Amino acid sequence: MTETSKTDEAIDAKTGWPERYYAVIFTAQRSLSGDDMYEITADRMVTLAQQQPGFLGVESVRGDDGIGITVSYWTDRDAITEWRGQAEHMVAQAMGRQEFYDWYRIRTAEVVSERAFMSDNIVESHTAD
Amino acid sequence: MTETSKTDEAIDAKTGWPERYYAVIFTAQRSLSGDDMYEITADRMVTLAQQQPGFLGVESVRGDDGIGITVSYWTDRDAITEWRGQAEHMVAQAMGRQEFYDWYRIRTAEVVSERAFMSDNIVESHTAD
Repeated sequence: MTETSKTDEAIDAKTGWPERYYAVIFTAQRSLSGDDMYEITADRMVTLAQQQPGFLGVESVRGDDGIGITVSYWTDRDAITEWRGQAEHMVAQAMGRQEFYDWYRIRTAEVVSERAFMSDNIVESHTAD
Repeated sequence: MTETSKTDEAIDAKTGWPERYYAVIFTAQRSLSGDDMYEITADRMVTLAQQQPGFLGVESVRGDDGIGITVSYWTDRDAITEWRGQAEHMVAQAMGRQEFYDWYRIRTAEVVSERAFMSDNIVESHTAD
């Protein structure tokens, strides 16, 4: 087993991420409506986000109860503001409020430390892109 | 529909959370082993964390592919350090590396902004406790 810190050069080289960056933590409860459009829209938003300046990566999980957590990573807050105001994304946000979600909460946070563990049995540990 | 910002007094009063706080973003891939012990240990860690000074709340989701995201919230970094060094938690961390996880990544981040949406159709939007 291996546990590394953010200052570990191997990890930094592997991810290519900057020393300081931001996370947007999006926690949401899916409503029972709009399944097909939701999937299409969610996939499209990931594709669009990846094209945005300052995008670093995204991790997303949804459980059986419809609660999901998506964490996206960005170089700085300006990049997050730009993404929030992207035209097609703004349409998706409105659809989210009208159709997809019972509730959501969005927190922006500055990452101040990071560490990782990878079992000796596997090759790849970086998942955030 | 309602969208509120962190400075909205109603939200602040509802959560009772401090203006500035920290998130620990734990992203992990479950291994195929140790199912029963994992469930028991994970439940126990939530109970223990709730008793720690500085604990604010936790959100946790695991998908069908075994990838999970758990975000816990704390008043300050000292509280996070204390929790990381808590005796029973340290045993669980070792079990996690030996048995439960193929890999994990832990990021500590300072929350700098927050907003929430709640559909008019539901009563409760705060989920982080």
